[in-house]
Amino acid sequence: MTLFAALPLLSAAQQNVGFRQSEIVSPVINADNTVTMTVYAPKAETVTVIGDWGDSFAPYQMTSDGNGVWSYTTPALPSEMYTYRIIVDDVSMLDPVNPFVKRDVGNVFSIFYIDGGFADEYQVKDVPHGDVRATWYHSDALNADRRLNVYTPPAYAESGESYPVLYLLHGSGGDENAWLELGNTARIMDNLIAAGKIEPMIVVMPNGNPSKQAAPGETSENLAYRPQMSNKFQGYKEGSYEMAFPEIVSFIDKNYRTKADKAHRAIAGLSMGGFHTLYISANYPDMFDYVGLFSPGIPTDQLNQDFEAYRDLDGKLTRLAQDNKLYWIAIGNTDFLYEPVKEYRQRLDRLNFPYTYHESEKGHVWSNWRQYLLLFAPQLFK
Amino acid sequence: MTLFAALPLLSAAQQNVGFRQSEIVSPVINADNTVTMTVYAPKAETVTVIGDWGDSFAPYQMTSDGNGVWSYTTPALPSEMYTYRIIVDDVSMLDPVNPFVKRDVGNVFSIFYIDGGFADEYQVKDVPHGDVRATWYHSDALNADRRLNVYTPPAYAESGESYPVLYLLHGSGGDENAWLELGNTARIMDNLIAAGKIEPMIVVMPNGNPSKQAAPGETSENLAYRPQMSNKFQGYKEGSYEMAFPEIVSFIDKNYRTKADKAHRAIAGLSMGGFHTLYISANYPDMFDYVGLFSPGIPTDQLNQDFEAYRDLDGKLTRLAQDNKLYWIAIGNTDFLYEPVKEYRQRLDRLNFPYTYHESEKGHVWSNWRQYLLLFAPQLFK
Repeated sequence: MTLFAALPLLSAAQQNVGFRQSEIVSPVINADNTVTMTVYAPKAETVTVIGDWGDSFAPYQMTSDGNGVWSYTTPALPSEMYTYRIIVDDVSMLDPVNPFVKRDVGNVFSIFYIDGGFADEYQVKDVPHGDVRATWYHSDALNADRRLNVYTPPAYAESGESYPVLYLLHGSGGDENAWLELGNTARIMDNLIAAGKIEPMIVVMPNGNPSKQAAPGETSENLAYRPQMSNKFQGYKEGSYEMAFPEIVSFIDKNYRTKADKAHRAIAGLSMGGFHTLYISANYPDMFDYVGLFSPGIPTDQLNQDFEAYRDLDGKLTRLAQDNKLYWIAIGNTDFLYEPVKEYRQRLDRLNFPYTYHESEKGHVWSNWRQYLLLFAPQLFK
Repeated sequence: MTLFAALPLLSAAQQNVGFRQSEIVSPVINADNTVTMTVYAPKAETVTVIGDWGDSFAPYQMTSDGNGVWSYTTPALPSEMYTYRIIVDDVSMLDPVNPFVKRDVGNVFSIFYIDGGFADEYQVKDVPHGDVRATWYHSDALNADRRLNVYTPPAYAESGESYPVLYLLHGSGGDENAWLELGNTARIMDNLIAAGKIEPMIVVMPNGNPSKQAAPGETSENLAYRPQMSNKFQGYKEGSYEMAFPEIVSFIDKNYRTKADKAHRAIAGLSMGGFHTLYISANYPDMFDYVGLFSPGIPTDQLNQDFEAYRDLDGKLTRLAQDNKLYWIAIGNTDFLYEPVKEYRQRLDRLNFPYTYHESEKGHVWSNWRQYLLLFAPQLFK
């Protein structure tokens, strides 16, 4: 016996309040792909769970065993990453014994995975791993140092080769971390590269909030900058981010071994990031051969034409149509943006603009965006 | 009006369950550096808060306003980063309206900062920022690809210069992310470099659990690998990690522009990482001119001498003493490791081994380790 044997518990007692002594394990993924959440709430009258596996976020009742242990078992679930919270007598909380959490906009959620399908690609496999780095570029146009995340493929450091680049843009509740955290992008790339399904590529995840330098907590506002939707931000819908995008491309081409031409660049974004992608690709028709609009935000009436980014969209699209290898649009059949996206497709049809359309189940949810990335990436740089 | 104006709320309603509609703001940092936590728990009988600002983790009672709003105000607090959880009728949870969380071992905590002192260095300032990357090296000795985090200073990409390297090791509840997340290392480095208080340096944060490839959730075990103390891990206290450490140094020297000699290498670690640092520096006396033991784990009786790492410590220390610029030991005056560290200092005294000793307030806590980094880093590479 050395002191070391005793150290962990003592240490835990001092610093790690309530280090899990609990007998409760939650969630438990059952063999039939149902999932059981369990929480000890001895004085509670009502305990419910909300999660993103159903058609709505209506709370599911947990049932008590009479000794304060409440549990709920989901239906059998298809393979995905799922998020949930538990509500004890009107107080919303994480699963107290699940240490794995992810933030989506202003909420933190407990998570779990169901294996056997899509979610296998979202998790770590025993394959070579690329690097992920948080780095900073200077934007003259936005007058700020700004943070972005860069994934480089496993062979990058040693190969000496140059790689194509995918630019991946987040939605109005996100930031440069969203595609990594909720999108699981680095794992998806590692796994698709290892399986030979995609070209090894660099993936760049910038921050699309033009008045913010970085994600909440990562700017000099620190914790005073609470996560919020982008329409609260200065510069929202002025096109400044879209017009400044070549600064990001220049920074990447300068600092990474890229194949620095249109044939080796792709851009895709979800929701607000799809809106950004639409206007960036239209304004810079010589920059990207591959464009992905994932459940994109689409202007249904006139944007302010004082802003250069938004002027003459038909003319810009007509020019882009002349030289574009893939214009891929995807949306879920219950997405609240379904109709505006349909109208946008009709607009493209009128312009004889060739595009590929993918319609999935479900709505405006991360499961769709992860799945769209799995479908989009293999079509690039062929 | 465009559709976009309406998008955020709709999106929130679909995906971001319970996106903060609450009027409650918590925590609130008051002008006198007291902090008020507030939680809405209309049916609760007892609500308490536990946090790391006091001498113990005894819960503080929150008081109800009679309408279900419970609150507690701390005493005036010195500048630091603090962690806390709220307990509603025996159920432990995060502050429901604070989106900022950090994990320590198996628990997730809500956090806040008190400005005006140490914590100013832990937060983001309007200064140039270095890069942080998660990367992977192959360990022949441990027969695995293993993850580590690397901080490169702000000028790294453009300067073309070579830099000294600090290796920073975590404790028995941690992993390669601990110094970044709980240690706030990247911000500390950015701020000290900008203030001219330290040499620009590379900081390498490896994973010290020899049978694990990476942090919980980042290995191919995925969420099945629950965070736990290191004494649960295979290979714990066999010295394999310590003896394999030159592989990490070689990887860094090969892939980064380093000043690859003893005069430009430092190593420091907290708790178990201090134990690792002690044995790595003793076994490789030509590798590091600067050594930091932060609240180190110290063997008070015999380690298994079958393991090469642990043999003949006196002889190894005697050799290291001949050529060592800084051997810095720090511990809090209420740390449960205080006595073993005192005995270790007496051992060094017997060996005429020169060292510098720093004694702080408090115990085996992250506030000490952050502060030790603030004190240690300015002494390096002079």
